[in-house]
Amino acid sequence: MGVIGYGYWGPNIVRNLQSQENMRVVAVSDKNPNALKRVSKAYPDIRLTQNAREVITATDIDALAIVTPVSTHYDLAREALVGGKHVFVEKPFTASSAQAKDLIDLATQKGLTIMVDHTFLFTGAVRKIKQLIDEKVLGDLYYYDSTRVNLGLFQHDANVIWDLAPHDFSIMDYLLPEKPRAISATGACHLNGHEDIAYITAFFDNNLIAHFNVNWLSPVKVRTTLLGGMHKMVVWNDVEADEKIKVYDKGVEIKSAEGVYQLLVSYRSGDMWAPKVEQTEALSLEAKYFAECVESGKTPFNGGEAGARVVRMLEAANESLKMKGALIYL
Amino acid sequence: MGVIGYGYWGPNIVRNLQSQENMRVVAVSDKNPNALKRVSKAYPDIRLTQNAREVITATDIDALAIVTPVSTHYDLAREALVGGKHVFVEKPFTASSAQAKDLIDLATQKGLTIMVDHTFLFTGAVRKIKQLIDEKVLGDLYYYDSTRVNLGLFQHDANVIWDLAPHDFSIMDYLLPEKPRAISATGACHLNGHEDIAYITAFFDNNLIAHFNVNWLSPVKVRTTLLGGMHKMVVWNDVEADEKIKVYDKGVEIKSAEGVYQLLVSYRSGDMWAPKVEQTEALSLEAKYFAECVESGKTPFNGGEAGARVVRMLEAANESLKMKGALIYL
Amino acid sequence: MGVIGYGYWGPNIVRNLQSQENMRVVAVSDKNPNALKRVSKAYPDIRLTQNAREVITATDIDALAIVTPVSTHYDLAREALVGGKHVFVEKPFTASSAQAKDLIDLATQKGLTIMVDHTFLFTGAVRKIKQLIDEKVLGDLYYYDSTRVNLGLFQHDANVIWDLAPHDFSIMDYLLPEKPRAISATGACHLNGHEDIAYITAFFDNNLIAHFNVNWLSPVKVRTTLLGGMHKMVVWNDVEADEKIKVYDKGVEIKSAEGVYQLLVSYRSGDMWAPKVEQTEALSLEAKYFAECVESGKTPFNGGEAGARVVRMLEAANESLKMKGALIYL
Amino acid sequence: MGVIGYGYWGPNIVRNLQSQENMRVVAVSDKNPNALKRVSKAYPDIRLTQNAREVITATDIDALAIVTPVSTHYDLAREALVGGKHVFVEKPFTASSAQAKDLIDLATQKGLTIMVDHTFLFTGAVRKIKQLIDEKVLGDLYYYDSTRVNLGLFQHDANVIWDLAPHDFSIMDYLLPEKPRAISATGACHLNGHEDIAYITAFFDNNLIAHFNVNWLSPVKVRTTLLGGMHKMVVWNDVEADEKIKVYDKGVEIKSAEGVYQLLVSYRSGDMWAPKVEQTEALSLEAKYFAECVESGKTPFNGGEAGARVVRMLEAANESLKMKGALIYL
Repeated sequence: MGVIGYGYWGPNIVRNLQSQENMRVVAVSDKNPNALKRVSKAYPDIRLTQNAREVITATDIDALAIVTPVSTHYDLAREALVGGKHVFVEKPFTASSAQAKDLIDLATQKGLTIMVDHTFLFTGAVRKIKQLIDEKVLGDLYYYDSTRVNLGLFQHDANVIWDLAPHDFSIMDYLLPEKPRAISATGACHLNGHEDIAYITAFFDNNLIAHFNVNWLSPVKVRTTLLGGMHKMVVWNDVEADEKIKVYDKGVEIKSAEGVYQLLVSYRSGDMWAPKVEQTEALSLEAKYFAECVESGKTPFNGGEAGARVVRMLEAANESLKMKGALIYL
Repeated sequence: MGVIGYGYWGPNIVRNLQSQENMRVVAVSDKNPNALKRVSKAYPDIRLTQNAREVITATDIDALAIVTPVSTHYDLAREALVGGKHVFVEKPFTASSAQAKDLIDLATQKGLTIMVDHTFLFTGAVRKIKQLIDEKVLGDLYYYDSTRVNLGLFQHDANVIWDLAPHDFSIMDYLLPEKPRAISATGACHLNGHEDIAYITAFFDNNLIAHFNVNWLSPVKVRTTLLGGMHKMVVWNDVEADEKIKVYDKGVEIKSAEGVYQLLVSYRSGDMWAPKVEQTEALSLEAKYFAECVESGKTPFNGGEAGARVVRMLEAANESLKMKGALIYL
Repeated sequence: MGVIGYGYWGPNIVRNLQSQENMRVVAVSDKNPNALKRVSKAYPDIRLTQNAREVITATDIDALAIVTPVSTHYDLAREALVGGKHVFVEKPFTASSAQAKDLIDLATQKGLTIMVDHTFLFTGAVRKIKQLIDEKVLGDLYYYDSTRVNLGLFQHDANVIWDLAPHDFSIMDYLLPEKPRAISATGACHLNGHEDIAYITAFFDNNLIAHFNVNWLSPVKVRTTLLGGMHKMVVWNDVEADEKIKVYDKGVEIKSAEGVYQLLVSYRSGDMWAPKVEQTEALSLEAKYFAECVESGKTPFNGGEAGARVVRMLEAANESLKMKGALIYL
Repeated sequence: MGVIGYGYWGPNIVRNLQSQENMRVVAVSDKNPNALKRVSKAYPDIRLTQNAREVITATDIDALAIVTPVSTHYDLAREALVGGKHVFVEKPFTASSAQAKDLIDLATQKGLTIMVDHTFLFTGAVRKIKQLIDEKVLGDLYYYDSTRVNLGLFQHDANVIWDLAPHDFSIMDYLLPEKPRAISATGACHLNGHEDIAYITAFFDNNLIAHFNVNWLSPVKVRTTLLGGMHKMVVWNDVEADEKIKVYDKGVEIKSAEGVYQLLVSYRSGDMWAPKVEQTEALSLEAKYFAECVESGKTPFNGGEAGARVVRMLEAANESLKMKGALIYL
């Protein structure tokens, strides 16, 4: 494999690709010479270049990991696919739905694999919640409510939605069988011209509703997702070291009501249960899965289509944001 | 004083009015005979009736506490004001802005006091945050973000916005000198035809933004408000027994940026400080303040105007909710 | 019933005795006239006196609740038993084992009921843990480790062991089928001549060990008990509003070891489970149980013998404390 | 430098020594060939051997890090000192006080530096607490109470005291100007013949008392230390990511008492304050400090004497443990 980009996330990508039995990273490119020095120190045998094209066109490379800013994804991935190489692309997949569609079409036509790095889908927590949903433990879903806030990582080329929401959009896309129909988003910018706070609602055909709170200006780090189901409810707190997932045997039942201030709905309150969550590094599992998909030719669940759905939600959220919450259909 | 309504909240009202030095509750009405039995057991000397009118027209009563469902507030308060009585009205003030305006006009004309029971404004936590804002400790405010979720108390005559948001709207109205210009709200209903989940954004003239997450379907109880300021940030966690308020010396500063992926904004991270919060029962302080306002004739900060602003926000949020987030100007 | 003592805990006793169907409090005594005024305000029909003897000797009273400082328990209870009255005695039962034995003998001889107010045994949390132990969910027990610390309630007639440890000693006595053989205690006093910090170890015949950390000088309130069993382990956090009890499917297994620094023991780490805990007020259940025991003549599990075992542990802990941890056999 | 032992902790030692500007690791020894392979992969230039003596006697080495089981410390360190090499020894310093004394004498005689790896002393948390004590913020100290429990890391050559207590003994030794006079310890063993639970009390000349709760059988990880002072109290929770240290403006004051059940002592309850804690890796600061001490010849505060005091406490705790809490003077 070749890897393009060795900034914040690149070292994790290289380390996990390298640790797979049936993969080898043979070349890394980065415009920044200091980044290349860091590669060299950790992996003396890897070929280095400041020119991404040299990696893309290398004949000893079957697949490329593109770990660069989103604005460059399309050109790099297109060139790689045209050159017959499988691609593993950092999230978000592309800067627009049109770009995503073009890459998907190209990969289909050439019989190549696209995988988008939706790392969270490979965490023990998300896999456990997926299992709870698939096994109907939660029952029909009422809502999906996510909060992802902390201080910073302001970026000069993206707002907080493009930065943080891809995580949550990809997780929701993976967990829920239903797909959202429309999006409303609000937000504000305070410091550098990009929104640093945003609130996004996704509407579904049934009464299911999803909401995302993303914020670069919070003094505390919160990574909490609530899923409310008819039978059980889940709280996923990702900043907890242990007990990341709690399943509550709590709910409500409709009853006939009488009189003013009588409750229409009765509570059910039972045990709470924190299932053990696997600790294997997500990126390692994802790298392994990429190899599997490339070898077998099967389409990954985090392939181009999943990436495109996330990009479409990002676009819609940003359109709505500009219009202070106006509903944007997907 | 007379008290109309002795349901869930009425006993607290009577107990706190009764404990004031210069007040006495002489009559209580409630349509429910069991409620009256409870009054009788606790306060054998209080006059009881199932007919609210008997309390409203009683000649030995100077002021009335109206602790009934919101749909009845206007008629009861109007009759009381017409009869020359001061009123203490449960939140939300009225079922519509028009009703609120009419009552305010009537009270002004008759020189009578209206106080809306925005109890939270008298808690130690809210008073401490008010002090931090007034003393410019936080600096210019960036956002106000509130989450008030738990399992239930479904009501058959109101949705979750009318039930829970009056708390947060009244707190924000009290804390922030600026008033919101427009509102966008989204939500969903799952059980009894009323929305049980809602997300509300309030826009202000400057870049200040406020957001409210209210939910009757959460397995966990959350009562958290974040206030982000230029100098400091506050996390108010009302379910904590101690350390309800934490003031973070955290923030961001704009710097010139260079290169892709360079940070535009730098963090500042200092100490955290949890100021001592007064424990006196809020409703007792409010009852005392009501007596002061009635005696002195001064307009309470939680008077009809504050109540009307909250009602206007509730109306706007519900209008927007029906239109899936469409912006409603206030 | 008659009640002697209406200080800090007396009002809870009277309220809960009074709320039982088959009980009535007819007289209360307290040396403090202000205490009697409070009784009168809440219960106008109860007979009042500053002289405990008037209650003890009243012919319309079948049973006495003794809610006074421990130094007075023996004389009051003895007089009551001699007079043919059942007694409900505040914890700790008596100031010495000898006193306890004398009262037990007297009650047996007269066929009267003694119940010691070990309120915690009637909480949902303790009853749930008892069930987990009785149903062998935890397996053989390794240890019982309790921490009960907070700021103050310094008393001028008792040290922190006599004040706080009766709770934990009575809970352990109830939960564990085994009884301790010896005690070692350490501690220190800083302010008023009584120990305000103490650490107590209880040894059992098998390898089971118990430890108690009691402290009046802690800035934070901690109420945590760990029970380690061969199969599962319990953490009971009594300051949590919900999820007071967590059952961990965690443990260790012995394996053969090889080489220096090889682990001899392997971990087992599975799910965590927080069973629902009943919320009924403990003192109400205890009052009901007292009535049952008096009517049926059965010996309560929190009777004189249980009270005496707790007193013996208190004595031993204090003896050891004076000798800086010297082992005292029970 | 040379490093002997590349097991669990060795890689951290090598990485941090290596990252210092004025140090270089030239040789590593370990009996386990797999350990040497790991060194080779990470540091291709380092000389490797299974024979510790080759490192100790190497002429291009000025100082040795001894990162082996405690039973080997004395022989290795002695040989190193005899050979004129400075030593950095893993904690606990030695297996006995006699060994410690011998090494100290030898180092003094040869003018060589001994540093014991009491890593915690270089954490931001401990340095901040040291500052609070030195600047008299806490006032006279009442107690030091530490809990260090979690599931396992059972070792076949040491009990839980030798494994976990060196951390807390070295921290206390560093923080408190006073030194303990006597120790009482209790504990139990359940699985492999070594105590897996222990409770240790340390007595001081004044009323200061210290207590240590160490446990390998806890289902939850707790790392909490409380320091109670006359003016302020500290809670150090090392498992918190942020706000590890909380300083409470809480305390008690003695007042004259009147009447039974009157409080003798009144509370003071003010703000809480969580000072910012430095995040620099402790072992890196310690490595730097080792280089400084070697160069300047100054005696480190975590030198042989500090190591010997910790070993003496470990010995005393184990003696007392064998005698179920009997007091052992230091």
